[in-house]
Amino acid sequence: MTAVDAALQAVDQGLDGALERLFAFLRIPSISTDPAHAAACQDAAQWVAAELASLDIPAEVHPTKGHPVVIGRTDTGAARRVLFYGHYDVQPVDPLNLWQDPPFEPHFGETADGRRTIVARGAADDKGQVLTFLGALRALKESGGRLPVDVTIMLEGEEECGSPSLPAFLSAHAGALGADLALVCDTGMWDPKTPSITTSLRGILHTELTIHGANRDLHSGLYGGAAANPIHLLSRILADAHDADGRVAIPGFYDEVREMPEAVRERWRSLNLSAEGFLGPVGLSIPVGERDRMLIEQIQSRPTFEVNGIYGGYIGEGTKTIIPSKATAKISFRLVADQDPAKLWAAFAAFVRARLPADCTMELSEGDGARAFLVPPDSPDLAKAAAALEQEWGVKPVTIGTGGSIPIVGQFKQRLGVDTLLIGFGLDDDRVHAPNEKYDLSSFHKGTRSWVRILSALA
Amino acid sequence: MTAVDAALQAVDQGLDGALERLFAFLRIPSISTDPAHAAACQDAAQWVAAELASLDIPAEVHPTKGHPVVIGRTDTGAARRVLFYGHYDVQPVDPLNLWQDPPFEPHFGETADGRRTIVARGAADDKGQVLTFLGALRALKESGGRLPVDVTIMLEGEEECGSPSLPAFLSAHAGALGADLALVCDTGMWDPKTPSITTSLRGILHTELTIHGANRDLHSGLYGGAAANPIHLLSRILADAHDADGRVAIPGFYDEVREMPEAVRERWRSLNLSAEGFLGPVGLSIPVGERDRMLIEQIQSRPTFEVNGIYGGYIGEGTKTIIPSKATAKISFRLVADQDPAKLWAAFAAFVRARLPADCTMELSEGDGARAFLVPPDSPDLAKAAAALEQEWGVKPVTIGTGGSIPIVGQFKQRLGVDTLLIGFGLDDDRVHAPNEKYDLSSFHKGTRSWVRILSALA
Repeated sequence: MTAVDAALQAVDQGLDGALERLFAFLRIPSISTDPAHAAACQDAAQWVAAELASLDIPAEVHPTKGHPVVIGRTDTGAARRVLFYGHYDVQPVDPLNLWQDPPFEPHFGETADGRRTIVARGAADDKGQVLTFLGALRALKESGGRLPVDVTIMLEGEEECGSPSLPAFLSAHAGALGADLALVCDTGMWDPKTPSITTSLRGILHTELTIHGANRDLHSGLYGGAAANPIHLLSRILADAHDADGRVAIPGFYDEVREMPEAVRERWRSLNLSAEGFLGPVGLSIPVGERDRMLIEQIQSRPTFEVNGIYGGYIGEGTKTIIPSKATAKISFRLVADQDPAKLWAAFAAFVRARLPADCTMELSEGDGARAFLVPPDSPDLAKAAAALEQEWGVKPVTIGTGGSIPIVGQFKQRLGVDTLLIGFGLDDDRVHAPNEKYDLSSFHKGTRSWVRILSALA
Repeated sequence: MTAVDAALQAVDQGLDGALERLFAFLRIPSISTDPAHAAACQDAAQWVAAELASLDIPAEVHPTKGHPVVIGRTDTGAARRVLFYGHYDVQPVDPLNLWQDPPFEPHFGETADGRRTIVARGAADDKGQVLTFLGALRALKESGGRLPVDVTIMLEGEEECGSPSLPAFLSAHAGALGADLALVCDTGMWDPKTPSITTSLRGILHTELTIHGANRDLHSGLYGGAAANPIHLLSRILADAHDADGRVAIPGFYDEVREMPEAVRERWRSLNLSAEGFLGPVGLSIPVGERDRMLIEQIQSRPTFEVNGIYGGYIGEGTKTIIPSKATAKISFRLVADQDPAKLWAAFAAFVRARLPADCTMELSEGDGARAFLVPPDSPDLAKAAAALEQEWGVKPVTIGTGGSIPIVGQFKQRLGVDTLLIGFGLDDDRVHAPNEKYDLSSFHKGTRSWVRILSALA
């Protein structure tokens, strides 16, 4: 029996114990955003420190201005070291009346289609996911093998309130946190049968555009037909920002966008993400992105121009016949590949300027942005982790992008110089941040087994 | 000496007395919107009733829910009857500290270019203008001639607060108020040397358009690039509403628009209304209306599509990366000639619908509108009044339109079946509604003389 098989057997045999430990962890109401639960956050930090100690991993509970960061670290002399990140804090539970059972009394449940679940606040986000990783370490230890890689484990308690203490903490402990690769277990699977690795995060650029016309609001009866209307100008600019085929029409916008390798696109193609399935639940059915792109590309590997808010003129009840002196749009771009926020900001400024009559002016707030994150598709660690997941689940994992940003990934890169693989076992129906949060028993069990395989593969 | 010449001489000889009467009228602080001045409004009503009585015109002070309406009426058996409308109430005077002298202590002043003025709240709007008409009646009486037309004089006290009592009053007294023509003295001259008759008022259509997309606000990272953004759709619709030449691009929009007669356009052309002169004071310089139209046409005889307000998505401080579920625009159209508000509303609804993807919906509030008002350019009464004004001022009067609506004109047409000529002697620098309101002595004197000529011409 190989060391891996022995560890997998230990996972299977130790499942009841692992669930007992998870239930104990879930009983701690570590709601980080609520000062009334500060002591519970301390309890949760102590609980994970004790859990690490029980694995013979020395752990320290580091105080911060907010809730503590727990650091555990093995030093077996393995050739490689991974940095594992997760969080022990959870979201608030309101509205409490929508919970079928008290949120901090974990119990088993079942989905409509017969999947067994663990129900409690934090079951999926992120306590259950964190324990898949610690469970794998326990199985490797109990099956007698040595750890295939050294691990540094960092568990924070402020993820659900924006991780305010983390950047400074990372910088202060950069030396101790050095690793060859970071692993984050806080994302989801493609579906209950298909694992996935999140390999790209779109970047972002925020800016606010105000168009100024006359030096005051004008009477639309007296000036209407002659005086420039900033709402009309702004509408024209925003409309021009996309062409009829759904492409962003700002010159130079796609210059730094790279095509995903055909293998990735081929894999995506086989996933058949449907407009019905993706947009149906929010009441839509027609993708509006680039016509010649698959839906999955539109939301993952292609950049966007999006107006998040707009206002100008009279917006109260009833009517007021004015031509407003100005109108404003709040705009965000999602960036991919090598797109540079500063360069795109300048391109957009030129695009706006080209559409302004000489007697009107623009105000464009300094762009606030972050570049995209992308694990190179040919990354050896990615290939190893993917192969390990395929062995466990029997299907090739999907490498996906996500449009939302996960700030920790940028922080790892920026402050520690470390790349990250995001691998998690959550599912779309986990009700994360909502009442009756759950985590599939299969996610927990096979997730733990997956980490045994991944850690061995990364050696 | 003709009767007209005798009456004109009486105007000239009686100027001092006329100014004394005007000053007495101006000393009454008849601010209609301020309950503290209700007694002053009663005083002003009684003052004009007494003034009419002194002209041997029986007058009644009719109470309303607000301030009274004064009606005076001659019955000389003349072949025609005109209905004269004006108002005895005035605007509030704040900010009081910006007045060089107390607003209800009328006195003479002088403009920078040497024109003599009467300074007081209400000097131009509308007490001075009302007394030009009553002064003409006095001169006609004193010079011994009989009145060329019978007159019904209606003076209200709520014009500066929206004339709430007037529609019901008109309906209740429709029989007594019947006339061949209505005259309103509450408008202005083209410039200090050029009289004008306002012969067209643009109509209006208000509506509010909301575009609905997803059934809730979406995360722009997760859905951006795929989900329809109602702000984008709204921007496209609003941008499409004008073509590159400044024309409104809604199909059928111009169907009921008529060309002004070439004589009118020729007269307008000679006025040389410049972009600099008209737009300069509000900080603009480039007319945005139809390229092939004179500026004066753009603002007077051509219809418009104007967005008065817009809002959607996140409009607070900072950023929020959402794709909003909806976006709204408040829209008004200015109508001319035979444009029908209901028909235009339907045309706009179709225009919007044609631009909506199948998975989005629109909400278009029921249109609230009024047709344009236009004195036919070939109206005999218009020609007579114009000739009379030319005799007095030595230059052809300008027939102009105004984009703003003057509700009384529609009320006269709708409730009394009477057309209106708007003739007034105000000037752009009268500071109407503002501190240091004034009326040119020349407006008052030659305005009075003008009415002598007009009434005689209309006979």
